[in-house]
Amino acid sequence: MPWAQAQQRKRVREYGVKIGVLPPGSLNAITDVPGIQVGHVTLVQGTQVRTGVTAILPHGGNLFQEKVPAAVFVGNGFGKLAGVTQIQELGNLESPIILTNTLGVGTAMNAVLDYTLQQPGNEMVQSVNAVIGETNDGYLNDIRGRHVKETHVLEAIKQAKEGPVAEGNVGAGTGTVCFGFKGGIGTSSRQLPQSLGGYTVGVLVQTNFGGVLQIDGVPVGEELKQFSFSKQILEKADGSCMMVVATNAPVDARNLERMAQRAMLGLAKTGGIASNGSGDYVIAFSTNAGVRVPFTPKEPSQTMTYLHNDAMSALFLATIEATEEAIINSLFKAETMQGKDQNTIQALPLDKTLNILKKHHAR
Amino acid sequence: MPWAQAQQRKRVREYGVKIGVLPPGSLNAITDVPGIQVGHVTLVQGTQVRTGVTAILPHGGNLFQEKVPAAVFVGNGFGKLAGVTQIQELGNLESPIILTNTLGVGTAMNAVLDYTLQQPGNEMVQSVNAVIGETNDGYLNDIRGRHVKETHVLEAIKQAKEGPVAEGNVGAGTGTVCFGFKGGIGTSSRQLPQSLGGYTVGVLVQTNFGGVLQIDGVPVGEELKQFSFSKQILEKADGSCMMVVATNAPVDARNLERMAQRAMLGLAKTGGIASNGSGDYVIAFSTNAGVRVPFTPKEPSQTMTYLHNDAMSALFLATIEATEEAIINSLFKAETMQGKDQNTIQALPLDKTLNILKKHHAR
Amino acid sequence: MPWAQAQQRKRVREYGVKIGVLPPGSLNAITDVPGIQVGHVTLVQGTQVRTGVTAILPHGGNLFQEKVPAAVFVGNGFGKLAGVTQIQELGNLESPIILTNTLGVGTAMNAVLDYTLQQPGNEMVQSVNAVIGETNDGYLNDIRGRHVKETHVLEAIKQAKEGPVAEGNVGAGTGTVCFGFKGGIGTSSRQLPQSLGGYTVGVLVQTNFGGVLQIDGVPVGEELKQFSFSKQILEKADGSCMMVVATNAPVDARNLERMAQRAMLGLAKTGGIASNGSGDYVIAFSTNAGVRVPFTPKEPSQTMTYLHNDAMSALFLATIEATEEAIINSLFKAETMQGKDQNTIQALPLDKTLNILKKHHAR
Amino acid sequence: MPWAQAQQRKRVREYGVKIGVLPPGSLNAITDVPGIQVGHVTLVQGTQVRTGVTAILPHGGNLFQEKVPAAVFVGNGFGKLAGVTQIQELGNLESPIILTNTLGVGTAMNAVLDYTLQQPGNEMVQSVNAVIGETNDGYLNDIRGRHVKETHVLEAIKQAKEGPVAEGNVGAGTGTVCFGFKGGIGTSSRQLPQSLGGYTVGVLVQTNFGGVLQIDGVPVGEELKQFSFSKQILEKADGSCMMVVATNAPVDARNLERMAQRAMLGLAKTGGIASNGSGDYVIAFSTNAGVRVPFTPKEPSQTMTYLHNDAMSALFLATIEATEEAIINSLFKAETMQGKDQNTIQALPLDKTLNILKKHHAR
Repeated sequence: MPWAQAQQRKRVREYGVKIGVLPPGSLNAITDVPGIQVGHVTLVQGTQVRTGVTAILPHGGNLFQEKVPAAVFVGNGFGKLAGVTQIQELGNLESPIILTNTLGVGTAMNAVLDYTLQQPGNEMVQSVNAVIGETNDGYLNDIRGRHVKETHVLEAIKQAKEGPVAEGNVGAGTGTVCFGFKGGIGTSSRQLPQSLGGYTVGVLVQTNFGGVLQIDGVPVGEELKQFSFSKQILEKADGSCMMVVATNAPVDARNLERMAQRAMLGLAKTGGIASNGSGDYVIAFSTNAGVRVPFTPKEPSQTMTYLHNDAMSALFLATIEATEEAIINSLFKAETMQGKDQNTIQALPLDKTLNILKKHHAR
Repeated sequence: MPWAQAQQRKRVREYGVKIGVLPPGSLNAITDVPGIQVGHVTLVQGTQVRTGVTAILPHGGNLFQEKVPAAVFVGNGFGKLAGVTQIQELGNLESPIILTNTLGVGTAMNAVLDYTLQQPGNEMVQSVNAVIGETNDGYLNDIRGRHVKETHVLEAIKQAKEGPVAEGNVGAGTGTVCFGFKGGIGTSSRQLPQSLGGYTVGVLVQTNFGGVLQIDGVPVGEELKQFSFSKQILEKADGSCMMVVATNAPVDARNLERMAQRAMLGLAKTGGIASNGSGDYVIAFSTNAGVRVPFTPKEPSQTMTYLHNDAMSALFLATIEATEEAIINSLFKAETMQGKDQNTIQALPLDKTLNILKKHHAR
Repeated sequence: MPWAQAQQRKRVREYGVKIGVLPPGSLNAITDVPGIQVGHVTLVQGTQVRTGVTAILPHGGNLFQEKVPAAVFVGNGFGKLAGVTQIQELGNLESPIILTNTLGVGTAMNAVLDYTLQQPGNEMVQSVNAVIGETNDGYLNDIRGRHVKETHVLEAIKQAKEGPVAEGNVGAGTGTVCFGFKGGIGTSSRQLPQSLGGYTVGVLVQTNFGGVLQIDGVPVGEELKQFSFSKQILEKADGSCMMVVATNAPVDARNLERMAQRAMLGLAKTGGIASNGSGDYVIAFSTNAGVRVPFTPKEPSQTMTYLHNDAMSALFLATIEATEEAIINSLFKAETMQGKDQNTIQALPLDKTLNILKKHHAR
Repeated sequence: MPWAQAQQRKRVREYGVKIGVLPPGSLNAITDVPGIQVGHVTLVQGTQVRTGVTAILPHGGNLFQEKVPAAVFVGNGFGKLAGVTQIQELGNLESPIILTNTLGVGTAMNAVLDYTLQQPGNEMVQSVNAVIGETNDGYLNDIRGRHVKETHVLEAIKQAKEGPVAEGNVGAGTGTVCFGFKGGIGTSSRQLPQSLGGYTVGVLVQTNFGGVLQIDGVPVGEELKQFSFSKQILEKADGSCMMVVATNAPVDARNLERMAQRAMLGLAKTGGIASNGSGDYVIAFSTNAGVRVPFTPKEPSQTMTYLHNDAMSALFLATIEATEEAIINSLFKAETMQGKDQNTIQALPLDKTLNILKKHHAR
């Protein structure tokens, strides 16, 4: 049972590897940002179905009525992320973020419509910007069978809760592959000191991409002899990474876009190259109560308190570090999986990896 | 029967009004660009359902295997256009373009997946970038009832054919409203003289937006006393316009994006203002056989013949004019419609309008 | 003396032509937005020099110390506008906006550095984002002679004042050509009713572009038989339009970018086509005292009151109308000019134009 | 004499550190891309002047008459890079790329105009898109004194030559600071195997930014206890990195933009964070003779051979690796420098650094 096994593998920091210079939050998860809820539905059925759904809710209220500032950055756009242009135009997010597989985006959109249209208070709503990210799990999963149904998406939203977040072969990460190893869901967070504002940045990723794996700077991919372009043939590094960045800092859409852009720098530090075939997207939002956007404002203008540009750099560093560690966590927590057509992807071999890390005197 | 009635209203040029300085193609339709096919499914059911689907196929072959260069320009992004980022990243289009209502995007995506995955030759395809545009027909249509089903989308694709294109209350234009009058589908084209390359530009629009209507420069909206902000109250000009621009000129994605941007100038000439609530998007593609992009190229590089930047200006003018006339055609062809909750939208009053045009000595 | 002659031609509204549905401010100029200052230096020397400089100051204080929210929209980027990316990244403007000719941008940048570095309070400043727009006046002006000097730019800044703004062959508009007629500087404004917030939008343009001239919707270019592509030869519509949009509404950078984008819709209504060779740029800023950005903030965050997205549409319409009228004003006010190599550009023939407008019953 | 001293420090690869998995070209420099010329003018005058100019010429011919495809990516736009929008609109570069200090951009623009207008064959040219990058060397250099003159820029262009490229405290890197150590100019290249096309990618950087230094993944910044936010105070990581990416692969502007975006991933691997105050820009161009753009094309269209999207991933990896190594080379080659107001920046301590690298068993 992949999920249960995954729990026996520990997160990278539990092995003493400290990525970056900023400390994580207490859960070292996106849910360290107060109010954020995450839910997974994992579909492992028979020999062919290895997929799922992950839902991220910026807050527990009515998101359509109380939108949050948001932004999207496109690292590489070979993907189907739904809802991009409305976030970019209006600077806000009005629905749960759903992650699933590439061919499940339409179904997930319909589910988000179901959810939002039926939510009390939304009886008059006629337009909803569903935000659905995806990566392609078609190596392990019978993706053409389109096994993700609206009920799965609604269940992921329903299951969403605060607290620790399951990682590895769960939810939208059930069937993904990363650096040639089993990928999945990963999460991490950073906590700024009070002198830098005391804000939290949390990141959740769905990892399904390639490149030349580095863990905390150590060339693990090379030492394991598994990396893109490692032989003189055109090995594809294709695949994708969906990244969700959250903060409780009072940041407007413009500065959230800048934070989103930094998540790609975190991906780079793991050895990702944003290959041609990747759909690398970052969605960033602020949960800060003072900057929420009501659907029906009482006044034409709104008084808000935002961070200055000058105060952003520490949040950038936090985003980079939490993204890097979230990606590595996805690899540490994901178990070997066999799926479609008996295709098998090995988990990152922890013993070897830890030895390599030790050899390199990683902190 | 709205569609039949619509046929009794003529297109603006049939009343002697010549918009712009370039001549139209023989059909004065997007289908003047050779190979393009358009199909509509119109849903007028009972008193509440007034919606539909319009499909535009760049060519009659396997679009996924033989992609076309394409681009998207966002005039105002309060909309749900699916497929934007992949077009922007890769510069091509690999599926039929579907237009429908706002809450039908997910369903239409699923239908495009059905269509593409089942098309002969696509048995191994695991990723499809469905491109679905929409406007919100919720004033006349029970949009929350989500009456567009996958079968309707598949039927629109199946019905798609070359030749004349039905306009007005058809397909995705069935329930739309434009400048306070009944909007709908409109189309037009421009034919460049041989000295400018002899290329054709065709445009199809789904009109659902507001502003201060001008027809061939004549202030019809003001004279009919129906325009946005006409009283000192905050009247909303909200709504959207989906625009599809096609050409047989050999144009790459970068220059297609520039053409797409010009369609907004055509919208401006009708009095559109791209209000806050509008989802104004332009999708542009080239059908030129010499610039198509194979899914599985035989070589890592491809030899193509493209127009220089310097040759683009005439195509820009053609795009502006065809967009302007396509929007006006949607108004001329759309009939008065009663729909949801007995809401009624009057057609543009042709007698009065033609009198106003005559008074202003429009060409 | 071109400038004096230009004063004898009146602005379009003085001939009874009312463009748009919103009323102008009292000056019908960008300076209706309180605090804005405009200065021109006009260089008409001998037979060859026909150029100049126009400076727009968002407020009369130290702009570097007290920045204003700002945005840029690129209508067509064949131009040399300096300062774009910093405005886009940081969302603010920290210097006077300078307009001049294409080959004067470097010199104008140096002058803005002189001005800013020497301004009291800026003794420690080591980085200044100079914003310099330009169009190419090389048909009438010996542009290769590079006659704009730093002193001219500093003088334009020094001359800047509130109140009426000279139009036509002045400042940066001295040698420009528009729709085949003499172009120049034009300005206009719109005043929203109190029910829509009571804000002012002002626009100033430097017109040097082509297309198919329409004045208040009337096809003046066609009737005067002077328009782009009018014969079946590749006539170039090249040239550029610099547009500066100002408002006292409390608008953030994201919504200022949306306003900037609308100025292109105003350009479209005059018949502009944003040809391949055009550098069409819009710089928008807010002078609202409540949203200014201090260089050295006292706190890491700032409390500001901004308009909601929902309140933007009226400002969009105001931007469109003021841009349209500003462009037409530049044509009405510019006099016939002879310049370099005895090249001569005729002024828009007012008698004929007014007859055409009368014939079309323009309002 | 800083430049001479710099030659005594070796490049990182000479110490046995191999960054990445792809091999460098023979010079391990941007000049491995055939035809590229680089020239430096280094200004070290008295105690206060520490600045300079670096010129990069894509080919030795008339760049204006024979433009090269090009793109720009903005990693963080707090900078003054001139020429961005025209490259983005037209997809090409028509002048030498000049790097200098922040307050020298206007002067460098004027010098590029001088150069281009006077070049034989350009007698009729009236518009030149000068592309000038910069970083702020104001800590070591009397930047407000604006010591870079047009003659220096023209001299750098004149000095430009093929072959090895001087690094460290030369040209535009004379006064820069990187990760708290002396930065400067660095360069590197990657050579793809024939199976991946055999193309070369070369990168040149001007390093002036901060973050948490990593060398080949090793946490040198932390071990040297010198990194941004290292104490719980708001230490600024501000500063900038200009990156120039060149290839001889036949790549169009769209794919060059994608390559440019990857250079930021290389910066990330060195520990750069693209802080708020950074002007991080990437200019990418192709020197491939088959894709050059003539100023006066003989035909309205042009036949060119371009790489497919699918062939880009190896070029992305090459860009990332060459950027990373170029940045590290800038640190390895730059010598300790004292400058303005006796401010001193230490060179990266090579002995300590090499010990740290050894300790971490870097390859």
